[in-house]
Amino acid sequence: MAEEDTYRRAYDVTMTYPSTRSERHHLLTSEEVHRKRPKGSDIPSKDYDSLDYDNCYNVPYKKALRTFSKKTYLHMEVMRWVLVGFIGVFTGLVALFIDVCVRYLFKLKFSLFDKVYHATVEDGNVISAFLLLLGVNVLFAIIASAFIVIEPVAAGSGIPEIKCYLNGIKVPHVTRLTTLVSKAVGVLFSVAGGFFVGKEGPMIHSGAIVGAGLPQFRSMFFKFINLPYHFFRSDREKRDFVSSGAAAGVAAAFGAPIGGVLFSLEEGSSFWNQSLTWRTLFCSFCSTFTLNLFLSPVKGLQFGLLGTPSLVDFGVFQQSERQLWKAYHLIVFIIMGAVGGLLGALFNSINTQITIYRLKYLIRSRRVWRMAEAVLIIMCTTAAVSIAVTVLGTCVPFRNDDDDPSGGDHIYSPGDTSFRNETIDYFCPDHGDTKNVLYYNDLATILFNPQETAIKQLFHQNGAFTLPTLWIVFLVYFILACWTYGAGIPSGLFIPCLVIGATYGRFVATALTVLEKQFPILHFLTNLYPGTYALIGAASFLGGVVRMTISLTVILIESTNEIDYGLPIMLTLMVAKWVGDIFNHGLYDIHVELNKTPLLGWESPHRMEKLTAEDVMNPDLKYLYPITRVGSIVSQLRTTAHSAFLIVTPVSLDKVHQKPQTMAHHTPQLYSRREPREHALSIDSGTAYVRTPFGFQLSCVVGFVCVCVCLSVTQHLTSRTMNCSTNNTTYSASGIGRNICRVFSETA
Amino acid sequence: MAEEDTYRRAYDVTMTYPSTRSERHHLLTSEEVHRKRPKGSDIPSKDYDSLDYDNCYNVPYKKALRTFSKKTYLHMEVMRWVLVGFIGVFTGLVALFIDVCVRYLFKLKFSLFDKVYHATVEDGNVISAFLLLLGVNVLFAIIASAFIVIEPVAAGSGIPEIKCYLNGIKVPHVTRLTTLVSKAVGVLFSVAGGFFVGKEGPMIHSGAIVGAGLPQFRSMFFKFINLPYHFFRSDREKRDFVSSGAAAGVAAAFGAPIGGVLFSLEEGSSFWNQSLTWRTLFCSFCSTFTLNLFLSPVKGLQFGLLGTPSLVDFGVFQQSERQLWKAYHLIVFIIMGAVGGLLGALFNSINTQITIYRLKYLIRSRRVWRMAEAVLIIMCTTAAVSIAVTVLGTCVPFRNDDDDPSGGDHIYSPGDTSFRNETIDYFCPDHGDTKNVLYYNDLATILFNPQETAIKQLFHQNGAFTLPTLWIVFLVYFILACWTYGAGIPSGLFIPCLVIGATYGRFVATALTVLEKQFPILHFLTNLYPGTYALIGAASFLGGVVRMTISLTVILIESTNEIDYGLPIMLTLMVAKWVGDIFNHGLYDIHVELNKTPLLGWESPHRMEKLTAEDVMNPDLKYLYPITRVGSIVSQLRTTAHSAFLIVTPVSLDKVHQKPQTMAHHTPQLYSRREPREHALSIDSGTAYVRTPFGFQLSCVVGFVCVCVCLSVTQHLTSRTMNCSTNNTTYSASGIGRNICRVFSETA
Repeated sequence: MAEEDTYRRAYDVTMTYPSTRSERHHLLTSEEVHRKRPKGSDIPSKDYDSLDYDNCYNVPYKKALRTFSKKTYLHMEVMRWVLVGFIGVFTGLVALFIDVCVRYLFKLKFSLFDKVYHATVEDGNVISAFLLLLGVNVLFAIIASAFIVIEPVAAGSGIPEIKCYLNGIKVPHVTRLTTLVSKAVGVLFSVAGGFFVGKEGPMIHSGAIVGAGLPQFRSMFFKFINLPYHFFRSDREKRDFVSSGAAAGVAAAFGAPIGGVLFSLEEGSSFWNQSLTWRTLFCSFCSTFTLNLFLSPVKGLQFGLLGTPSLVDFGVFQQSERQLWKAYHLIVFIIMGAVGGLLGALFNSINTQITIYRLKYLIRSRRVWRMAEAVLIIMCTTAAVSIAVTVLGTCVPFRNDDDDPSGGDHIYSPGDTSFRNETIDYFCPDHGDTKNVLYYNDLATILFNPQETAIKQLFHQNGAFTLPTLWIVFLVYFILACWTYGAGIPSGLFIPCLVIGATYGRFVATALTVLEKQFPILHFLTNLYPGTYALIGAASFLGGVVRMTISLTVILIESTNEIDYGLPIMLTLMVAKWVGDIFNHGLYDIHVELNKTPLLGWESPHRMEKLTAEDVMNPDLKYLYPITRVGSIVSQLRTTAHSAFLIVTPVSLDKVHQKPQTMAHHTPQLYSRREPREHALSIDSGTAYVRTPFGFQLSCVVGFVCVCVCLSVTQHLTSRTMNCSTNNTTYSASGIGRNICRVFSETA
Repeated sequence: MAEEDTYRRAYDVTMTYPSTRSERHHLLTSEEVHRKRPKGSDIPSKDYDSLDYDNCYNVPYKKALRTFSKKTYLHMEVMRWVLVGFIGVFTGLVALFIDVCVRYLFKLKFSLFDKVYHATVEDGNVISAFLLLLGVNVLFAIIASAFIVIEPVAAGSGIPEIKCYLNGIKVPHVTRLTTLVSKAVGVLFSVAGGFFVGKEGPMIHSGAIVGAGLPQFRSMFFKFINLPYHFFRSDREKRDFVSSGAAAGVAAAFGAPIGGVLFSLEEGSSFWNQSLTWRTLFCSFCSTFTLNLFLSPVKGLQFGLLGTPSLVDFGVFQQSERQLWKAYHLIVFIIMGAVGGLLGALFNSINTQITIYRLKYLIRSRRVWRMAEAVLIIMCTTAAVSIAVTVLGTCVPFRNDDDDPSGGDHIYSPGDTSFRNETIDYFCPDHGDTKNVLYYNDLATILFNPQETAIKQLFHQNGAFTLPTLWIVFLVYFILACWTYGAGIPSGLFIPCLVIGATYGRFVATALTVLEKQFPILHFLTNLYPGTYALIGAASFLGGVVRMTISLTVILIESTNEIDYGLPIMLTLMVAKWVGDIFNHGLYDIHVELNKTPLLGWESPHRMEKLTAEDVMNPDLKYLYPITRVGSIVSQLRTTAHSAFLIVTPVSLDKVHQKPQTMAHHTPQLYSRREPREHALSIDSGTAYVRTPFGFQLSCVVGFVCVCVCLSVTQHLTSRTMNCSTNNTTYSASGIGRNICRVFSETA
């Protein structure tokens, strides 16, 4: 008896298994487990649960099945379609709410700034206007980060969390109603507050929460919402609805319903489910349609006319007589893709370092530090933007289109009316010396406009921005966006990446145009719509950062509304991904990894092919007997973080005793939490995702070289061709601004 | 011993299991098995093999694995990308070959016809021209069907076969080089020969064969092609390449690379494989790009300009000032979708009956009968077209656009030059009585042009076709296309369905325009680009016939190059599918079923949920012992059609003998041939796919009602609004043609 007891105590341990852990929360909190577990162990640090992919065929389910008639199945099927329709509509409405509010807050902020600026600019002392801007931005930042203090999971873009959820990992609170509110309202203030963040990522998360919540007919937070409709409360159904919701979010954000479906598939699906895919597409279209229907009157169109299908609007590409691209331009696109991939890898490396620091010192300590960091970021951002606009912006004159009918080839040819309405003239002379020429500040036009407008201008306004302006924007955005992503505010990654990439692409286009004047042989590179380079630049950088494949291709094709761009975008993304993958992983994957979420990658490493189950099993077997003393159960619960326990019936104790080690060898541990996949053996060691040292150093060198090249190219080109000091076409603002052009010409 | 022998003989039978059956071909041919097996048994009638989805981890593979280094894996990965690139390029070249040849043959045929027609039309005796047409068509039909006599699997569109292959069923000869040649060359002659068939389905099959063949570096037919490169000869790799090839085929056929990827996924994938999908998209883009690059010079554009990305060209939709559609038009589209679904179901029912007859009397007998049927079809087609063109066509005058600037609303307003060049004036007066008005025969313009041109005109030429012409084309096409599909020629289904649907849609648009003059309240239905109705009609009918979901949506969006059509197309297809599914399955599924291919559907019927393995097991256990007499093996091989055998080791014979029935209950039989799927239990009884009686009768009634409604609407509208006899705007040809307009006005 004593021997048996000893034996029991020796192996009296538990085993992980997918199940809920609510029943033992009173015994041991996850922090306690985290503290108590041995260092370096592979147990996930947070209390993640796994979602069941298949319905659990237990006795009650079988009993319920017997009562199901054909009518029940039909009813469920119809309800599924109705519900995804509603999910689409609701997601569209959330997008509408975000868009309208951001528009209003932005207008409010800049009308205030405008008033103070015009009141004080005559005295040459506009510091009060900038102080006002800083005040409003800090206020908005505090509001945005306050929502994160309430619901920490609402921070960031939400895409890593959705990716985990779709792959079967239940991140706590990720689909709660409070998260939706925090995310949707928080992102208003983070975008309107002037952070370099997008509202598209949070839109996707919002869609996913709508998808998860709506078909449940109940809320965990608002207990009074609890209708007796429980058809769709199983994990499987819920996950299907979350897929649809996420797709609807993408559809609303980018006007890309097909891209949305592919996003859900790429990020989440192990299996291809035809009917789910089809339903998801319906959901996406509902979302786009709803947003389109209600956004048209907001934008001043007649109700029923469908003009603006998404939050972003990249403008019309086929407005020019020139071809969008020709066959041989593909080589340039591939080179641009490679550079974009390098820049993206650099971005990821720097952000990884920042995030590691942030996880170490900010998140683990009190939450108020996160708020302080957000305020610090917005202060730096506002300062950088203000300094850049006042000191470094170039005053560019509007050119009359009649002056030079060849239009596009001239470096300053921003002609059309819609562009004039979107330009900003701070620190530029009201009227020039001759012919009432009007000026605009090109740097302010990018930085003081909503980011979507800036992207549209970078895509389409050929020659509207000077080379110095482009690389200043690039640098400022690169550094600040890299710092911002992952801070304690709801923040999307797509739009800032597109801005950075578009400046890079526009820089290439403008530089080629300028170089062509010296080397006419380069004409073959410039005889295409110059916006193509900006688009390719944007695609390459975004691809280099997020490393998404088919869904990103389709999203970009759909949001530009140009199917002809398919091949260039695909090639660019492919090259950017390949080049980036040499150094590190996509930023979403890095964040999943840094959060220690037990997510398995798509492909198992090749060395896994040679392993057998025996090679990865834990010899330290943890199980229970059907009859065990309470004390030993409690002691096991205290010493392990497992959610469920293997019950072993001792058939013949002698045999078990003889070779316990062999038996232990065949017990699946840790990764049985995850749903079965083709490569369930793929237990990546965790450090693979964050290959920092080599990647970081090399990327730094590449980045430094890039900056140097840009600087020298700009100086060369500026001094040679702009001739600003001789022609007097550019002006510095009186009193405050020193024109970058003048600086260059003085140093030359 | 004697007892044991008796027992062995009693259970001395075999069991199916996925494996090759080449080793026993010398024992029993499939026909013998087919003859010998008991009537009504569920054993598949042909010798299909299954493809292994996973690599087989046997000892030699494991040994090979041990020699694989990182470099080997990298080499394989690079080769995969290079090969899919080549597959794309080759598929594009095959498409180019088909397109150029069809163009040439078509030109040749009609230039001959034109010469004879103009030589004889003065005498009023053009019978020789039509005899020439008949002769050429019959010649082409014989050539096309001769290829099918050589390689029977090249008949039809090939999509059912590809669907089976992608789902793991190896249909014999389906990926052979001879099949590719038969298909690609055969389809030239079947399309140029005037059959109502498309070249797009065969294009997809051709792409799949290129995908299957190219990475093998060897040919089963041409033995001398056999390079020692065997990395990609496993079933799994081959199937991946076939997916890519099929996608490339779709991409080349419709200019729809994303649609191609989704086609491969929808038709074939059980699992979502991210890297495969991404590679497939690359393959599709390579194919589109190659076709585009080489087709541009063929069409007279500069080399390097990329203007025509596909075999079909649906024209530019956004040429009009009018909106493509408004929100409330969706209701009309849904109704049109429902009618299209009904018409599609009728088409499928009739084709099912024809195919059953064909399988019974034509295919099982000598192959020459198939050729005879093809000749009969082409004779009927030519006769029907000739009669329709001469007797029923309406001579429509070209209107000067200056006459009526409101243009689109008038029923006869075909103005632009490209349309004038594509019209055909047979049997119409050379010059009218006043102002040198020119006329064209609208029915000849549809039927004597390539089908792609006809579709483009139906989409964009508002008011170019009279109502009688539209329903005559609809009827002729419906009947003859229905008869043709499944005959002994390579024949695609997409294009004829699009023609039928486009006439239906154009009929709706024209009828609404005419009705609006009487009931101005209908203006809200006509204030959109009228081509939208034609497109929706085409989508609804095609959707009603093939019942594809997301891939068809994306293919149509990409080939029209209008992302704005997403929601209308999706809604129409959805409604058409739902309505059609009430009566029967998609035509491809029906043909898969009629061919007795053991393909499992996507979803298992709900009643399966309640079954356990025990319910579907075969109690008649078939297995072998490790040591058996040769005689008993031979006798088993003679009496069964199984490909592999379960080897049972008699652990304790007594026990087995005691309850053989129980053991037998737990032996998987028949359907273990198929690869494991989520619903491997779904054994549909075979008749479900061909629910003819009810569907056929109801569809007939619906079809009859539709025809009656069309007839009466046409007569009503024609007599009321066309006023042809009073205004003298329409003419009958001298000598032969009696104008449909005059006929109507005389009877009125």
